[in-house]
Amino acid sequence: MKVAIAGAGAMGCRFGYMLADSGVDVTLIDGWKTHVDAINQQGLFVETERGSRHYSLPAMLAEDAHGEFDVVILFTKAMQMAEMLQKIAPVLASAKVVMTLSNGLGNIETLEQYVDRSVIYAGVTLWSCELEGPGHIRATGSGNIELQPLMSTDMTTAGRLVEMLNHAGLNAELSANVLLSIWKKAAFNSVMNTYCALLDCNVGGFGRRPDALEMARTVVREIVQVARSQQIPLTEEMVMHTVQKVFDPRESGEHYPSMHQDLHKGRLTEIDYLNGAVARMGEAQGIPVPVNRLLTQLIHAKEAQ
Amino acid sequence: MKVAIAGAGAMGCRFGYMLADSGVDVTLIDGWKTHVDAINQQGLFVETERGSRHYSLPAMLAEDAHGEFDVVILFTKAMQMAEMLQKIAPVLASAKVVMTLSNGLGNIETLEQYVDRSVIYAGVTLWSCELEGPGHIRATGSGNIELQPLMSTDMTTAGRLVEMLNHAGLNAELSANVLLSIWKKAAFNSVMNTYCALLDCNVGGFGRRPDALEMARTVVREIVQVARSQQIPLTEEMVMHTVQKVFDPRESGEHYPSMHQDLHKGRLTEIDYLNGAVARMGEAQGIPVPVNRLLTQLIHAKEAQ
Repeated sequence: MKVAIAGAGAMGCRFGYMLADSGVDVTLIDGWKTHVDAINQQGLFVETERGSRHYSLPAMLAEDAHGEFDVVILFTKAMQMAEMLQKIAPVLASAKVVMTLSNGLGNIETLEQYVDRSVIYAGVTLWSCELEGPGHIRATGSGNIELQPLMSTDMTTAGRLVEMLNHAGLNAELSANVLLSIWKKAAFNSVMNTYCALLDCNVGGFGRRPDALEMARTVVREIVQVARSQQIPLTEEMVMHTVQKVFDPRESGEHYPSMHQDLHKGRLTEIDYLNGAVARMGEAQGIPVPVNRLLTQLIHAKEAQ
Repeated sequence: MKVAIAGAGAMGCRFGYMLADSGVDVTLIDGWKTHVDAINQQGLFVETERGSRHYSLPAMLAEDAHGEFDVVILFTKAMQMAEMLQKIAPVLASAKVVMTLSNGLGNIETLEQYVDRSVIYAGVTLWSCELEGPGHIRATGSGNIELQPLMSTDMTTAGRLVEMLNHAGLNAELSANVLLSIWKKAAFNSVMNTYCALLDCNVGGFGRRPDALEMARTVVREIVQVARSQQIPLTEEMVMHTVQKVFDPRESGEHYPSMHQDLHKGRLTEIDYLNGAVARMGEAQGIPVPVNRLLTQLIHAKEAQ
């Protein structure tokens, strides 16, 4: 299969080089010219636990995107997705699979405005990666992918997609309820990302607060109500279980969630696709969501500083 | 009347020197030895718009407090009130009036545990002052006092008290519903103090947020529900009116509320007597108060940093 990765930040590059390394024909697409130029001129420089090396991969600027691809994997941040989809319209036209593994709520709804539901695959991934500079990533640790076609019953395509990802070592599996996984992850991030960003602390620091669990629960409780209104069978326990796990001093520690990093580097955060999305949906349904609304407002106030 | 001022911080000192200057026999009582010693040795040094001067005033350490006083005016922060009341028990025994003008909710309830309701006067004041160092205050601007005996119908004492305060230029008047004023002020502070402390900004900075009014309203709405459960006829409009007034660019600006200062100087804040008191009362009554609970938790997390 011919694959385009739209949004070649840290994660897009990681998927890109792993797929390319397994023999897949991959093209990276990104909006950052310096980064695209660096990849085209020197290759993508990848540091891993086992050393570092350059991978030769074609990259194109989003506004110049062209060509036919079987699979388009979207790896933009939620707030850049619509812009990316507009720019890569020529590439989307022929895609048989358009996959989003981006964090947050609302990505699928955005995607549906640009491509037919029948080609959409949604998922979550635990892979992570860091962009060190133009054309340079640090790809450590491992992860997995859980994915599901949104409505397609074309199991041949689904099977080939999973096989391709697994051949590249990406540990993919088809899920029967990926929307639940997306909500579970979004709920977890709505707690951990948001509080750590707001309180300027890492996961361990937040977890040591005597009322951290109660603070988590007040956010999760509202999210569960909103999820139920969308027919997502999310429960408070599902999310609190993961929260409690990362609060375990042996588990957590020095990790600063991405929203904390965004805020401290003066970037916009994904708050509108986490607590903000919950607040918006809750208010539209008449479900009380004062805590998620307030946290959204507080993070926006911090972004503005 | 012989007056003791228990808690001779900025405000206690301001009331102290103004009363002394008008001929009242005033003694300052405080827990900070260096401050008490400075006042006894060099007098209280007061800077105003019209120059500065030393006032000769007796001061005693709270644990050594003794003597008979007609009026005890309490000017401790809410969280120090119980400790102060325990220490000055010998002085409280003979007082005909024990007055609290301290900010926050719960002060009267604390006071009732140490003195008879019949001697309690409660109030609010718009006077302000800054403590510059031991024995040294800066007393600028003017203010007023609104006060009410909690249950006493002894109008002679009330009249003499108000007359004494007014003779000292303190602009006092008897109120028919001082509890409403206390709640109104506490609600306002639960918005302005808390958000400015949390967002590390001044009143003007907060007021410029596009959603500042909505953020204020979500706090105030819960407070109004809790106030009503205590038979306090507080309305959302009463509080929002003042909030909107200080958000007017001509009104607000560079002022940092005291909680912001407390947090930045590593001191405990009054949060448990503002949003925290509302949350406690609301939860006890089964009234939903998630926003005030969350803000209390967030400020405590900030205090711990």
